[in-house]
Amino acid sequence: MRVLVPDAPEFRALAAHDEGSVPGVDFAFYSRTEVPQGPADGAVLWLVGPDIRRQLLATPGLRWVLTLTAGIEHVQGQLPEGAALYNASRLHDRAVATHVLAGMLAASRGLHLFRDAQARRQWASPALPGPAPLTTLDGQRVVLWGHGHIGRQLEGMLSPLGAQVSGIRSGTPAGERQELLAAADWVVLLLPGTEQTRGAVNAQTLSGLKPGAWLCNVGRGPLIVTDDLVRALQDGTLGGAVLDVTDPEPLPADHVLWTLPNVILTPHIASTTADLVARGAELTRNFLIDLQQGGEPEGRVEVGSLY
Amino acid sequence: MRVLVPDAPEFRALAAHDEGSVPGVDFAFYSRTEVPQGPADGAVLWLVGPDIRRQLLATPGLRWVLTLTAGIEHVQGQLPEGAALYNASRLHDRAVATHVLAGMLAASRGLHLFRDAQARRQWASPALPGPAPLTTLDGQRVVLWGHGHIGRQLEGMLSPLGAQVSGIRSGTPAGERQELLAAADWVVLLLPGTEQTRGAVNAQTLSGLKPGAWLCNVGRGPLIVTDDLVRALQDGTLGGAVLDVTDPEPLPADHVLWTLPNVILTPHIASTTADLVARGAELTRNFLIDLQQGGEPEGRVEVGSLY
Repeated sequence: MRVLVPDAPEFRALAAHDEGSVPGVDFAFYSRTEVPQGPADGAVLWLVGPDIRRQLLATPGLRWVLTLTAGIEHVQGQLPEGAALYNASRLHDRAVATHVLAGMLAASRGLHLFRDAQARRQWASPALPGPAPLTTLDGQRVVLWGHGHIGRQLEGMLSPLGAQVSGIRSGTPAGERQELLAAADWVVLLLPGTEQTRGAVNAQTLSGLKPGAWLCNVGRGPLIVTDDLVRALQDGTLGGAVLDVTDPEPLPADHVLWTLPNVILTPHIASTTADLVARGAELTRNFLIDLQQGGEPEGRVEVGSLY
Repeated sequence: MRVLVPDAPEFRALAAHDEGSVPGVDFAFYSRTEVPQGPADGAVLWLVGPDIRRQLLATPGLRWVLTLTAGIEHVQGQLPEGAALYNASRLHDRAVATHVLAGMLAASRGLHLFRDAQARRQWASPALPGPAPLTTLDGQRVVLWGHGHIGRQLEGMLSPLGAQVSGIRSGTPAGERQELLAAADWVVLLLPGTEQTRGAVNAQTLSGLKPGAWLCNVGRGPLIVTDDLVRALQDGTLGGAVLDVTDPEPLPADHVLWTLPNVILTPHIASTTADLVARGAELTRNFLIDLQQGGEPEGRVEVGSLY
């Protein structure tokens, strides 16, 4: 079985003739600029831009594609006919859940405002108390919009803090969804980026939230209509926002989102950890062993059915 | 029973003739500048400076003092002979534990560096990856130095994140303590400020830590020898520090701690929440009801025995 994998030391180690190798697999390495020629049985998609991705997905003979991302929208429409698609949510679950918790707690404890005060060498933030009184998550209602693997991890982290967690799933009736959103102190977007979820948070959604509620987005930038978000932050409908993804992304230097006090921005690193590539290679190894042994690996995704 | 309490609306409500009142208790209100004259049976100590505190503790007839803080060092040496001392750890436990978790997660996810980048309108922090690679708390060894109510709360919050938590108690043998500290990725100081704990973290302690470990202090500033801390941060012995308390406190504007990149500073607000005064008044009410009913209220402290 010939498999295309990223050219990183952690993946090179998979092909080495030691304990890390996978019997019966012939690895071919693509870089950020070049794809090996010839047919392949499978492709492990990661760490490349759209051009190389397109070339990879046009490789003749592909029976499966494993994308080491949680989202799959970059593969949709380009998947070879008949090829199976797998994603790697589990690679990112714990880091993303941890990152969401970090953002929520930073907002609750005013760490972003204290950091600004620290830059000015001020012991007490003049912004406190006031628009952002310090809280804990004790008794706060947290709604996880999109309640899959990440949501379940996050729920386990939030419960010991006293938060009351609810989930919105694709099957949640619209009326119930509105009620949950209206009561929420925090709305956390964990949705995949699809045509169905684009603009899920817009002026109408925002007007249905509890005044002063906070929004957290670690899904995809286009889940939120950015102009509507900015307006809600400016007029105080929203208490604030924790954003790891934006639309546009990266956020241009002249964008107003940089300037709003209760926006906590990170550059799409919610799933990044120091050992991420090593863990991605390990996941790939286990995936290939499952395939070689005739099993069905974790992470099968039916394109178009997600959310 | 005549009781001195702070002059705040939440405490005024205790004296009102409605459900909030406590039968048989005559409330007298002190402000930040004035103490009512005459004897009193008890004093609820909070929200005042040293001068007023001294006047309060000199009130004739005091049989008990309830300080609505977790620490008691500001009362030691001034407590009237024979008076019982109570503290209010439980009022602060969850907020302090939550604040520690917030600081640890902010450091792990680089939120302090991303906040700095945000101020410069930079999508990616140039400081990452590098000296502070992004992590989760999964698999991290966390040592809670001082393992009382706050420590137990914090342990329950850290476990779902995959952290391995150990506690150091006053009875922990020195050798075991050194081993725990040497293996720790995080050392969290939850010690009270006493003569015994002063300078517990000094050059020698710091040299025994794992290189790159982080320190968090929400106990009292003097637990750490500040000059030694600064040196360990500057030479990279420590990865960073999350400090809610400092020595001196407040930190003067020209202090070097303001300028070190991996120091996350908050102005002694770990236990502060928007509803803190209301919760303090509620605790006082329950304390007084316990007393009136002849019970032993929670929080009795033997001066000198703490840690």
